[in-house]
Amino acid sequence: MKHFIVSLSSILVASTLTLSAANLLSQAKDSGLVPLPKDRAGIEAMLKEYGVKFSAFSQEKAELGKKLYFEPRLSKSGLISCNTCHNLGLGGADGISAAVGHKWVANPHHLNSPTVYNSVLNSAQFWDGRAGDLADQAKGPIEAEPEMATPAKLAVQKISSLPEYQSEFKKIYGRSGVTFDNIADAIATFERTLITPSRYDAFLNGDDKALSKAEKEGLQVFLDKGCAACHTGVNLGGSMQAFEVAGKYKFADLGDFKGDANGMVKTPTLRNIAETAPYFHNGAIWSLTDAIKEMGSIQLGINISNKEAKQIATFLQSLSGEKPQVIYPQLPIATDKTPKPEL
Amino acid sequence: MKHFIVSLSSILVASTLTLSAANLLSQAKDSGLVPLPKDRAGIEAMLKEYGVKFSAFSQEKAELGKKLYFEPRLSKSGLISCNTCHNLGLGGADGISAAVGHKWVANPHHLNSPTVYNSVLNSAQFWDGRAGDLADQAKGPIEAEPEMATPAKLAVQKISSLPEYQSEFKKIYGRSGVTFDNIADAIATFERTLITPSRYDAFLNGDDKALSKAEKEGLQVFLDKGCAACHTGVNLGGSMQAFEVAGKYKFADLGDFKGDANGMVKTPTLRNIAETAPYFHNGAIWSLTDAIKEMGSIQLGINISNKEAKQIATFLQSLSGEKPQVIYPQLPIATDKTPKPEL
Repeated sequence: MKHFIVSLSSILVASTLTLSAANLLSQAKDSGLVPLPKDRAGIEAMLKEYGVKFSAFSQEKAELGKKLYFEPRLSKSGLISCNTCHNLGLGGADGISAAVGHKWVANPHHLNSPTVYNSVLNSAQFWDGRAGDLADQAKGPIEAEPEMATPAKLAVQKISSLPEYQSEFKKIYGRSGVTFDNIADAIATFERTLITPSRYDAFLNGDDKALSKAEKEGLQVFLDKGCAACHTGVNLGGSMQAFEVAGKYKFADLGDFKGDANGMVKTPTLRNIAETAPYFHNGAIWSLTDAIKEMGSIQLGINISNKEAKQIATFLQSLSGEKPQVIYPQLPIATDKTPKPEL
Repeated sequence: MKHFIVSLSSILVASTLTLSAANLLSQAKDSGLVPLPKDRAGIEAMLKEYGVKFSAFSQEKAELGKKLYFEPRLSKSGLISCNTCHNLGLGGADGISAAVGHKWVANPHHLNSPTVYNSVLNSAQFWDGRAGDLADQAKGPIEAEPEMATPAKLAVQKISSLPEYQSEFKKIYGRSGVTFDNIADAIATFERTLITPSRYDAFLNGDDKALSKAEKEGLQVFLDKGCAACHTGVNLGGSMQAFEVAGKYKFADLGDFKGDANGMVKTPTLRNIAETAPYFHNGAIWSLTDAIKEMGSIQLGINISNKEAKQIATFLQSLSGEKPQVIYPQLPIATDKTPKPEL
């Protein structure tokens, strides 16, 4: 009889756990959390569904885009590439508060470099959302004086002067060849491959064991507190949202960024967030738990305790995803027509 | 009969060609030109023969060294890695005249970044040869104020603060763990893998067809003019040699570099030379043919004609070697103990 009772209670505990796991999963889904598509076709279908307009994907174009992503000659100095501020080895960001570019000048608005990983899934690009897609985004830093400082015309001149690029652009883009639009399109195509599936996605896809008990508890707190109001969708962020809804951001005075015309700010993705300190648009907060607590007070108007912040941070670790393997590219050899670096 | 004569003359021409090819090969070997060893064991044997003292090679150590090679947190700012100035995609150099480092400060002596490829085979490191091996060399730029600007103590503090590095160093170096010496040793171990076999090596190994007719003609001019007096050995350079032997370098006044205490300067390797403009210790000459002509007048006291310079340059193209495939590393995640970047 004792044996029977034990067994029965085991069954009860087990089914309660299963029920609670199922609850958590359905609660997560009800909050708008969506797993990453499992392959390229899935990504393309999702982008289509979201109404994102992209040029056709090809591996060849992504390879060209990879070279350009690592191409320091796209900068005026010849020293700065996309990868300088969006380092694929550092969670797709640079680990400093405000981006530093040409001539060691910091971003004039003290803006922090967001991660490039999964950025294709954001519905807005830049902190003020002024670009709707990655190809449009890619042009900004190339031309911006305190970033790569290369006017579009010079960028085209530099890339066209390298015969290997010339023939690759011709092959991929036909008659238009090397244009600033095509340069940006190739970079954006490479960036479309920078997707990082994580244990969190496996959980959303029904693998209950993909998250530890502590991570599930953290997800529960994350949902209960209302974080998924903004950090939602496939990227747990990436869309424009009101900022300082419930209180003033502690470091609001660092830099002069005030969001878009309506004060809206792009919600950062939470994917790989544990790898991309410092946080907030001005990179003023280095600790993930501090960032979580600050969000509680300024966005949700609630006090998130140290314990709860730690629980949420534990859950966020599960969003550190597997990075695609990138073979470092060999870049085309300069010719005597290649414009010289200007330091 | 006519047929016989034609055949006979063909045979004569063929044997003359073969003889001349054999002559060129033996002349090249007599001038001290040596092909790259074919594998890691061969490289290690060659280093031993040259009396280079290295720690034991292991793939694990090279992998750790690769991370450190791409590790911007080894710089004070968190923005500059070994790969910034010795870019593996740009022939192992940076393509600018004088290296630029921390706070955008140029090398105070206006020194050009030499290629990292095959640098393990140089008998001296740095332009003034002050380091005898790569591990010793690697420490210089990390600490130098206008390069990475990280004092040894801070470098150790930063790397030790990253748990993944800590455990890797412990596994590889045992009790000593993360030390500045071990950091340099790991980087040097990675650099030992950066060997680039080329068509030129195949030729030296007896494959007569590895070089085109024009390249062989160029090699013949290269040998006849006496270039191999300094550009000799396995790296066609890499040893200390007298500079301005026969005349004054046209751009001698750019920067204040005067060689070592005896005025000797490290001869740059000619491997991948077509990829590593600009040339000379102060990066003042952008054209390979101009560089060849300048060497003729200042080192050999001869006039190298435009035609001859082009012939030599054609030969030098055959020294562009196959680069080892490098998978871009994922770098360890910072903790709250990691010293913050200082811009």
